[in-house]
Amino acid sequence: MTEPAFDPRDPVALAQALIRCPSVTPAEGGALALLDTVLRGAGFESHLVTFTDPRSPDVVNLYARTGPQERPALLFAGHTDVVPPGDAGRWTQAPFSGAVLDGELWGRGAVDMKGGVAASVAAALRHLERHPGSAIAFLITGDEEGPAVNGTVKLLDWAKQRGERFGHCLLGEPTNPAALGDAVKIGRRGSLSGVITVHGVQGHVAYPHLARNPVGGMVRLIDALLAEPLDQGTAHFDASNLEVVSVDVGNPAFNVIPAEARATFNIRFNDIWNRERLEAWVRARLEAAAGSEVRHSLAFERTHSEAFLTPPGPFVDEVAAAIEAETGRRPALSTSGGTSDARFIKDHCPVVEFGLVGKTMHQVDERTSIADLEALTRIYERVLARMAA
Amino acid sequence: MTEPAFDPRDPVALAQALIRCPSVTPAEGGALALLDTVLRGAGFESHLVTFTDPRSPDVVNLYARTGPQERPALLFAGHTDVVPPGDAGRWTQAPFSGAVLDGELWGRGAVDMKGGVAASVAAALRHLERHPGSAIAFLITGDEEGPAVNGTVKLLDWAKQRGERFGHCLLGEPTNPAALGDAVKIGRRGSLSGVITVHGVQGHVAYPHLARNPVGGMVRLIDALLAEPLDQGTAHFDASNLEVVSVDVGNPAFNVIPAEARATFNIRFNDIWNRERLEAWVRARLEAAAGSEVRHSLAFERTHSEAFLTPPGPFVDEVAAAIEAETGRRPALSTSGGTSDARFIKDHCPVVEFGLVGKTMHQVDERTSIADLEALTRIYERVLARMAA
Ligand SMILES: [Zn+2]
Ligand SMILES: [Zn+2]
Repeated sequence: MTEPAFDPRDPVALAQALIRCPSVTPAEGGALALLDTVLRGAGFESHLVTFTDPRSPDVVNLYARTGPQERPALLFAGHTDVVPPGDAGRWTQAPFSGAVLDGELWGRGAVDMKGGVAASVAAALRHLERHPGSAIAFLITGDEEGPAVNGTVKLLDWAKQRGERFGHCLLGEPTNPAALGDAVKIGRRGSLSGVITVHGVQGHVAYPHLARNPVGGMVRLIDALLAEPLDQGTAHFDASNLEVVSVDVGNPAFNVIPAEARATFNIRFNDIWNRERLEAWVRARLEAAAGSEVRHSLAFERTHSEAFLTPPGPFVDEVAAAIEAETGRRPALSTSGGTSDARFIKDHCPVVEFGLVGKTMHQVDERTSIADLEALTRIYERVLARMAA
Repeated sequence: MTEPAFDPRDPVALAQALIRCPSVTPAEGGALALLDTVLRGAGFESHLVTFTDPRSPDVVNLYARTGPQERPALLFAGHTDVVPPGDAGRWTQAPFSGAVLDGELWGRGAVDMKGGVAASVAAALRHLERHPGSAIAFLITGDEEGPAVNGTVKLLDWAKQRGERFGHCLLGEPTNPAALGDAVKIGRRGSLSGVITVHGVQGHVAYPHLARNPVGGMVRLIDALLAEPLDQGTAHFDASNLEVVSVDVGNPAFNVIPAEARATFNIRFNDIWNRERLEAWVRARLEAAAGSEVRHSLAFERTHSEAFLTPPGPFVDEVAAAIEAETGRRPALSTSGGTSDARFIKDHCPVVEFGLVGKTMHQVDERTSIADLEALTRIYERVLARMAA
C-alpha cells in the first residue's frame, strides 16, 4: 500500500490514474486497489471483495465506509470496469493513456465511468476535510459492463449482512446527453425479452397443400405485437416499446417450405407494467392473432429487470438544486435510456443517477471535458454538504 | 460390350439391372453403358456423350436412334441418375439390390425413374420386332437430379446439331400419385425465386428513435406478397402460388435493433405468367406496400423456368387412350407438381409425361409394383403402335 503520487482530491489526476489501469471486465487492472489505497488514506474502512460464480468469471469489488455506523450513509455507487477499447489503432490517443489535451481527459472509461468515480471520491475527500464524521460509503463494482453476476447485487447483499445502511444513493453513470446539467435519472425502464416459435410442416414448394408454411403465421403474430403501442407513457416515463430484434428461419433452399420460424423480441417498459402483466399481454396478443390456425410457442428469458422510479421529492430536489447551483441549468428528470445497476440499488435505498456527458461512451476516442469533471466534483460536494453533513 | 445376361424385353429384368448400377448423380454407375449395349443390340445407333462445365461435374448422357433419318422420331426421354439413398440401414432391402419381393421391385430409382426407362426400352424392343424401321429415339441423361447443367439441355442441342428431329416426346417420370392411370402431365408450372432485403439503421433497443428496425418493414412487405393470390388458376393449371421460404436477421443480441432483414421466396406459376410479368408484379406489390418508409431492395435468382403446356390434342389423346386401354381408367390431364426436364424438351417438340406411381420416390424403401411396370411397358407399346409405326 504505497501512497499515490498525486493528490486524490484532484478528480482529473485521480481519473487519469484510474484510466491507466486496464480494467476491461472482468479484469480489476489495479483500479480498485488504487481506490482502496486512496480511501484508506482518507480514513475509510475499505474492503476488496471477490465474488465467484460457476456461470461467470471471478470479479473484485470495493466497499468502503466512513462515519458513525448508526447513521445511514450517503452511498456513492459506480464501476471501474470498462468495455474493450476495440481497435486501439483507431484512437487518437491510446485508450489507456489518460492523456490530457486541450481541456479534455482521454481514454476508455473517461465518462463511463472512471470520471464519475473519481469525482465522487475527490468530492468525499474534500467534504471530509470540512465535515469529518460524515457518513459516506462507496460501492464500486468491477462487473457492470459484463454479466453483472459477481458485482453490485452480491456486494449490496454482502454490505446488508454486515449491517450497513444507506440513506440515499448517487450513482455516477453518464446521464447527460449533450452538456452537464441536461438530466438526472430518477428511474429506469424495465426490460423483458422473449422468443416466439411458429411451428409449421415442412414440405416442397411444389406441393404447398402437403406443407404448412410458418412464415405467414409469424408475420401475423409480429404484426399483432407491433399493431398498437403498449401505452402512451406516464408522468415520468416515455411510452413502453417493443422491438422484434430478430426473425430467423435459416432455410437455404428455395424449393423447401420450412418447418419452423423463430422471432426474438425485447420490451423496454415503464412503471405501468411488471414482468407478470407484460407476459400476460404478449401471450394474449399472440393468442388472439393466432386463433386456431397458427401453432406457436412463447418463452420468456429468465433475465429481466423491473421498471422503477425514485419519485420526485426531497432527495431528487437536493440533487437537482446542486446541479442548478453549479451549472445554472435545471436538469430534466429522466427515466430514458438503458438499464444500470440502479435497478439493484433501488431495493436498498432511493437512488438517483447523475454523472458526466455520455456522448463518447463505449466509443473510440472516449473523453471528458476537464471543466465538466471539476464541476461534477463540486456538484457531488454540494449534495454531500446538504445530505451527509 | 458383352451381351447382358437377361432379356431386355423384360422390363423387370432390365430395371433390376439398372437399379444395381449405383448411379447417384453425377456418377454414371454403369447404367448408361448397359443401356448403350442393349440399344446397340437392338439396332440403335447409340452415343454416350460426356458434357463438361466449370460450374458442375462432368456427366455422361446417352442418345440413341433407329429408323429412317428423314422421319421425326418418337422420343423417349428420361434419366438414370438417382438421388442418394440416405442411411442405407433404414432400408428394408439394400437400396441398390434390385430385390424382387411379393410382386414389388425394390431399390433407389425403381420409380424415379429406372423403372420408366426400362419400360420404354422394353416397349421399343418389342415394337421393333413387329415394326422394324420405326423412327424411335432415346434421350437419357445422368444429370436430372443434380444441377441439370450437363444433361438434357446440352444433349438436345447436341442432337439438334446432328440434324435429329422429334415428332413427339414421352417422358417417363413418375406421374401417378396413387395408382397407374391417375394422371399424365401435359405441362408444368414455372418457377421463379427472389430475395428481398429491408435496410434499417442499427441501434440499441433503449434508444429506438436513433435506430430504424427493419423487421416491421419486412413484415409489411411479406404481408403484401401474401395478401392476395396471384390468380385463380387456368383451364389446365392450378392457381399460382408464392411461398416465403425463409426470413433471416441473424441478430443474437436482445438489446440490439438490427440493421437488415432478408427474406427469400419462390413462386410456382401457371401459363398466365412469365418471368418478366411476375417480376413486375412482385416489384409493384413491394413498392406499394413500402411507400417511402420501407427502404428495400429486390433481387431475382438467375435460374428459373417458364410455365409450359402441351395443349390437349391428338398426341395427348393417343397417350390417354393407351393408358385407358391398359388400365381401364381415364387419366387426369395434370400440370401440378415440381419441374422436370420436360421444361427443356418442350422447346424441341410436344412433350407429355407418364410413368410409374411416385409415392415412394426420393424416399427410403423406394419400390414399384411389378404389375405396374409391365402395364407401363404395354402402354408405351400402344403409343408406339399408334405414333411410330
Ligand atoms: Zn457505465
Ligand atoms: Zn425423376
